[in-house]
Amino acid sequence: MSENIYTYFRVTVPEPWIAHVEIHRPDQLNAIIPELWLELRTVFDRLSIDPSVRAVIFSGSGERAFSVGIDLKWVSKEGSPFIPRSDEYADPARRAAALRLWGVEFQECITSIEKCQKPVICVLHGFALGAAADFCAAADVRICSKGTIFCVKEVDIGIASDIGILARLPKVVGSYTWVKDVTMTGRNFDADEARREGFVSSVLPTKKDALAEAFKMARTLSEKSPVAVQTVKHFLDYSRDRTVADGLQYQLAYNTAVIQTNDVPVAIRALVSKKVPTFEKL
Amino acid sequence: MSENIYTYFRVTVPEPWIAHVEIHRPDQLNAIIPELWLELRTVFDRLSIDPSVRAVIFSGSGERAFSVGIDLKWVSKEGSPFIPRSDEYADPARRAAALRLWGVEFQECITSIEKCQKPVICVLHGFALGAAADFCAAADVRICSKGTIFCVKEVDIGIASDIGILARLPKVVGSYTWVKDVTMTGRNFDADEARREGFVSSVLPTKKDALAEAFKMARTLSEKSPVAVQTVKHFLDYSRDRTVADGLQYQLAYNTAVIQTNDVPVAIRALVSKKVPTFEKL
Amino acid sequence: MSENIYTYFRVTVPEPWIAHVEIHRPDQLNAIIPELWLELRTVFDRLSIDPSVRAVIFSGSGERAFSVGIDLKWVSKEGSPFIPRSDEYADPARRAAALRLWGVEFQECITSIEKCQKPVICVLHGFALGAAADFCAAADVRICSKGTIFCVKEVDIGIASDIGILARLPKVVGSYTWVKDVTMTGRNFDADEARREGFVSSVLPTKKDALAEAFKMARTLSEKSPVAVQTVKHFLDYSRDRTVADGLQYQLAYNTAVIQTNDVPVAIRALVSKKVPTFEKL
Amino acid sequence: MSENIYTYFRVTVPEPWIAHVEIHRPDQLNAIIPELWLELRTVFDRLSIDPSVRAVIFSGSGERAFSVGIDLKWVSKEGSPFIPRSDEYADPARRAAALRLWGVEFQECITSIEKCQKPVICVLHGFALGAAADFCAAADVRICSKGTIFCVKEVDIGIASDIGILARLPKVVGSYTWVKDVTMTGRNFDADEARREGFVSSVLPTKKDALAEAFKMARTLSEKSPVAVQTVKHFLDYSRDRTVADGLQYQLAYNTAVIQTNDVPVAIRALVSKKVPTFEKL
Amino acid sequence: MSENIYTYFRVTVPEPWIAHVEIHRPDQLNAIIPELWLELRTVFDRLSIDPSVRAVIFSGSGERAFSVGIDLKWVSKEGSPFIPRSDEYADPARRAAALRLWGVEFQECITSIEKCQKPVICVLHGFALGAAADFCAAADVRICSKGTIFCVKEVDIGIASDIGILARLPKVVGSYTWVKDVTMTGRNFDADEARREGFVSSVLPTKKDALAEAFKMARTLSEKSPVAVQTVKHFLDYSRDRTVADGLQYQLAYNTAVIQTNDVPVAIRALVSKKVPTFEKL
Amino acid sequence: MSENIYTYFRVTVPEPWIAHVEIHRPDQLNAIIPELWLELRTVFDRLSIDPSVRAVIFSGSGERAFSVGIDLKWVSKEGSPFIPRSDEYADPARRAAALRLWGVEFQECITSIEKCQKPVICVLHGFALGAAADFCAAADVRICSKGTIFCVKEVDIGIASDIGILARLPKVVGSYTWVKDVTMTGRNFDADEARREGFVSSVLPTKKDALAEAFKMARTLSEKSPVAVQTVKHFLDYSRDRTVADGLQYQLAYNTAVIQTNDVPVAIRALVSKKVPTFEKL
Repeated sequence: MSENIYTYFRVTVPEPWIAHVEIHRPDQLNAIIPELWLELRTVFDRLSIDPSVRAVIFSGSGERAFSVGIDLKWVSKEGSPFIPRSDEYADPARRAAALRLWGVEFQECITSIEKCQKPVICVLHGFALGAAADFCAAADVRICSKGTIFCVKEVDIGIASDIGILARLPKVVGSYTWVKDVTMTGRNFDADEARREGFVSSVLPTKKDALAEAFKMARTLSEKSPVAVQTVKHFLDYSRDRTVADGLQYQLAYNTAVIQTNDVPVAIRALVSKKVPTFEKL
Repeated sequence: MSENIYTYFRVTVPEPWIAHVEIHRPDQLNAIIPELWLELRTVFDRLSIDPSVRAVIFSGSGERAFSVGIDLKWVSKEGSPFIPRSDEYADPARRAAALRLWGVEFQECITSIEKCQKPVICVLHGFALGAAADFCAAADVRICSKGTIFCVKEVDIGIASDIGILARLPKVVGSYTWVKDVTMTGRNFDADEARREGFVSSVLPTKKDALAEAFKMARTLSEKSPVAVQTVKHFLDYSRDRTVADGLQYQLAYNTAVIQTNDVPVAIRALVSKKVPTFEKL
Repeated sequence: MSENIYTYFRVTVPEPWIAHVEIHRPDQLNAIIPELWLELRTVFDRLSIDPSVRAVIFSGSGERAFSVGIDLKWVSKEGSPFIPRSDEYADPARRAAALRLWGVEFQECITSIEKCQKPVICVLHGFALGAAADFCAAADVRICSKGTIFCVKEVDIGIASDIGILARLPKVVGSYTWVKDVTMTGRNFDADEARREGFVSSVLPTKKDALAEAFKMARTLSEKSPVAVQTVKHFLDYSRDRTVADGLQYQLAYNTAVIQTNDVPVAIRALVSKKVPTFEKL
Repeated sequence: MSENIYTYFRVTVPEPWIAHVEIHRPDQLNAIIPELWLELRTVFDRLSIDPSVRAVIFSGSGERAFSVGIDLKWVSKEGSPFIPRSDEYADPARRAAALRLWGVEFQECITSIEKCQKPVICVLHGFALGAAADFCAAADVRICSKGTIFCVKEVDIGIASDIGILARLPKVVGSYTWVKDVTMTGRNFDADEARREGFVSSVLPTKKDALAEAFKMARTLSEKSPVAVQTVKHFLDYSRDRTVADGLQYQLAYNTAVIQTNDVPVAIRALVSKKVPTFEKL
Repeated sequence: MSENIYTYFRVTVPEPWIAHVEIHRPDQLNAIIPELWLELRTVFDRLSIDPSVRAVIFSGSGERAFSVGIDLKWVSKEGSPFIPRSDEYADPARRAAALRLWGVEFQECITSIEKCQKPVICVLHGFALGAAADFCAAADVRICSKGTIFCVKEVDIGIASDIGILARLPKVVGSYTWVKDVTMTGRNFDADEARREGFVSSVLPTKKDALAEAFKMARTLSEKSPVAVQTVKHFLDYSRDRTVADGLQYQLAYNTAVIQTNDVPVAIRALVSKKVPTFEKL
Repeated sequence: MSENIYTYFRVTVPEPWIAHVEIHRPDQLNAIIPELWLELRTVFDRLSIDPSVRAVIFSGSGERAFSVGIDLKWVSKEGSPFIPRSDEYADPARRAAALRLWGVEFQECITSIEKCQKPVICVLHGFALGAAADFCAAADVRICSKGTIFCVKEVDIGIASDIGILARLPKVVGSYTWVKDVTMTGRNFDADEARREGFVSSVLPTKKDALAEAFKMARTLSEKSPVAVQTVKHFLDYSRDRTVADGLQYQLAYNTAVIQTNDVPVAIRALVSKKVPTFEKL
């Protein structure tokens, strides 16, 4: 991964095992367009199976924004799915079919963050508006800098988001009255409110501090058995959505292969001898 | 809606788009009897489809209580479902059949708050005991005044509530140890505790302040696309209860019609031109 | 229950209606071995149907730890499920079959805490590491002393826990970013953090204070209708995992028998006359 | 029920305990219009709670048809939900909202057959087309006369039925390839095919014979404990849709009240003494 | 297993790998009492983990009946759960609690047939009434002799079965109208009807023939990889109750261990070389 | 689509609207290898969104077999997922990870048949063994020629299929005892048995007749509104897996866009005037 091959992302491996994914449209405050979210999927699908990566940090380029959300210029352009049509898609059912294809693809691109087998730590700063909330809600851990401004903006362009935030937010934070408040009003909330409600797990003074904190966590994760870390992520996402009984049954079925790994005796020996273990690539 | 037509509720439209529903049995501290909950359903079912309403504020009349819950006088009266029978309902299966009919109706009346397509902001003050907790847990947003006393009281009359709170509370707040604590002990908790645990989203000094805050939020909501706001409410309630994958699939199916609305270009034009948009009735 | 009949637990009834279960391997910091978790199930299965018990307090013996989790000596011993085999279980499918039997049993032992029909208040102090977190997450209420150190340790022996914590934690606390953080890093967290995130409901200065608080709550619970209290526990655990609609339907079906109890008129009479009610054994 | 009070139905009680519901628009071959399905719900909701009824027979008046389905004249009339609008419902989202209200109501009317607590035996003859299939699929038992012609017609008016048949048919018969065949082609199938595929349970030579068979079964049902019969219906509908484990758990919760009925000793005594039991009204 | 150790069952191993379980109360036509179903669980739990068994045949002793169902003498005896109480269980909630414990145990005993990891072939003859239908519906394969009489009898003692048949029958056969017919009327049906509706897979002239057919199938099963056969059983029971997507996800998680077995190359080599493979015990 | 671009498939459009997909490895009896199932996905994904296609016929080239299933030569080759490894995949957890990636891909390729928005009619002849059953179970309609031999073969290579048949078969046919029989024994079954059990919907004398029948059905489907036909397919697959209530709710949400189509008035006018309608591309 010596060279960056993406247009809208900068993907680097600044330390062994740790990939850093940056949304890279800084002049447009990392505003989101279709080409960007399609590329997002490519980025995360590749990291998901890259054995040299054990943790991913996901942030936004530039000083002003993680991302301001969907690019309003694109949204209001002729041909955007949000603009009525006078062509063959004027029939509501045919327009619906087009919207469905388009929507499934957008959903899958965002879900590629959640499905990435490696833990994804999202670092937020500046503006994190609209679709940016959909993006970061699909990450595993969210941390932010002091001045971050969040908002679930879609309601202000006349739509209810169907690309992630409204499916995930009730499961990502505890207070449902707060969830309804911020998603129906579309109002801004700041880093402290995000922390108090459990949307982010820590607030650092600056973007630089937040990135440093993320790298510290990523380093910790990359020193552990990748089998164990990736399985924890998968078990939580599976169980979050299901009964405790179904969660337990699936976990055990899955673990009967995974637990036979040599990483277990390696980890135990290291723990007993208080040495740092080394794990094979996964 | 120039005149109030209800017995146990006062329903007004103090501002365009905003309905105010008050439980109105102040001399009995808004204690709840069957006639009241049947009327509650009528109130919310009508508001749900009234195109001139875009937000609902739900509070209790008088200074002393949102509601003290089920009217104990009624509960302990001959003929109440809680009192053993010596008639044709003495057979446990036949009494069960009667209880089932009665219970389904009571559940549906409370669920009419959740099913109301318009956002419902519940303003609590004074006492909010027993069935009052079942009522407010079905609202979208809960705010309260400083002195509000809450409790999930049913356990003290020998029953486990089956009308809402025990089905909704695990999904309304984050801390399950707290949920078990307050529902099994039936102990009081105050406004600050309710805020800390995420059961209410804000605490204001007085009932008047809380109402003012609610009206402010209702005003914000009523200026937005009613299509968008009502869809957000529905998407969250649908997704709260299901897997993320099922939430996403349903939202997209639903949105293929909704997103074709003219409200989207109206909203986008307003956003771009920084003017206040006007939306058609829904 | 005049005499303790268990090897790894001390079970006493220090007050009418209240059982106190202590993990009792203090010299090994209550480290967990198979004989212990099998006995755990026997303890809770018996308490579940013992009509003289209405609340259970669950804690660890000694001053240093609730429990340090799985006994590492046992884990790394020849014949442990975590150590590769060279015998007839060397075939991965046959080893998987053995792991499955073993895992289901372990899961069921821990789930016996959740299935115990009586409320279980878990009091934590000192270390509560690894499998100790799986244990306490299955209790109804968690309180702890100031110095308690928690951690979800399994990741450090190369495995993702499949015995409870990863199935329950997303439903026990509100902040999913925090859940991912502590389970993937395996880092320690202290009593204050546990309280802030809602994993415990109160923090007391010492183990003794925490036990006193637990007994106070247990006393409150034991004075209420056991029918009501046990049904509340069951309704919450059922509904936590299901849609609100399914929760309501099940609760009503269940309640049609339960609500016919004589405890209801007894409780109502007591409430009206402001006397302490007495309830039959259940 | 001495006099028929309905416009589109004839409801009689030709024998004790047995209600006969006939769709009664014979001049239009019992074609279905909104007033008819709204009345259908009233009919079945009343029978559901009428203690003097223990079984319901549901058939179509006249010799030519159970029903030819939705009245095409109404479908193609100005103002029907199937005809594009040029008024305030021209906005796709607002038209969708109207369609939703209308559709939920239509669904609920048909589901009132399934929700009716009494067993519903549907007798089919002549034509049973389109929405007629939606109606009869919601009944418990379907029997028909030799010459009955069935078809799932909706596809021929350009829509996929959303009022019942496509949700129920995969659970009502065994062969999914046959389900896809008849619902996608909209082709006719006759009584013998309906029998072979398990859609009806018996085929009688004439409508008169089929009615006689239905009355025979209804008589059998009405001699049994109404508690038992109605509970069997409910348990099957609940369990059809859920896991075996969930079915068993719900059934047991429900039965703890129902099984305490005096009908059990009455039935057992009758069985042992080989006499016909008499059961109280339910 | 040289000697039979059971009271109500005869368990033999007439051929390598094949266990034969016979209900053995022939003088009472294998009528079912609590001691019998408790022993049933012991029988199947042991066979489930006995590595020398690869298929189980389950039949009834004597010439007259597989089983006539619950022993009516026991049902109508003082102290049976079906007889009202005048002691401490007179309170409906306390009687419900007792019924629940008793019912869960009965359900689990019958489910031990389904949970038995080895395929269970049920051979029916003579009478198979009431609870006998609950028993055989939990087996994998049902075959019967020509003269077998089946019936879902519970409705005739005033109850809806909650021990299995009403949870399983909608998933065991295709025609829901037939399911409703036989469970609500409690009528007899014979071998040919059982075959036509798919409840049994073959009908043989005599019990002896049916047993011979069962042994033939059992022999076939025991020559295959026990890993493969047992996993097929588990996958089907898991998937029957869930979405196709959830079935696929679980199967793959489970198979990642199982498919690593040495049985695969052994089986493939045998298939290629057209020899009979030999598989290790499981 | 003038020229065939595939290696393992022949895809033609012999009539307007109808695509014919043939597995094209006739010299190997259409045996299945990884390159083939990857191409299968490409074929069906493209047909799914090709507006000039309204129905798909899926068959096997040559006279001898639809397909004999997985190519045994490939299965037993060094490097196949079924053969133990001595390289970096020797660790069971790492081999499991590779198997998982591989299996998810294989599952998705087969599911592309089910997800194809156009109806897929599978025509079977000769041998349809092992993975061929997984393929055809994902189609909508199955018809076959007289001499077709089916079998669910995987058990004979020591594995339980995880690529479709065991997740779909319990939902595709009615008799669960038959499902268990054929999947656990891996025995052959012929066209008549497949018809009797509902796995195929018709049996024709020869492959040619079966193809003719398929084209007849495809022609019928292609003359109907593509909106209606494709929505019927989707509604059935959605509802097959869910409760009736969830099926109804989803169908209505989905239909609020679809039903606004102009195809409805077009279809109604055609029906009323008894002319053949023409529908726009979808």
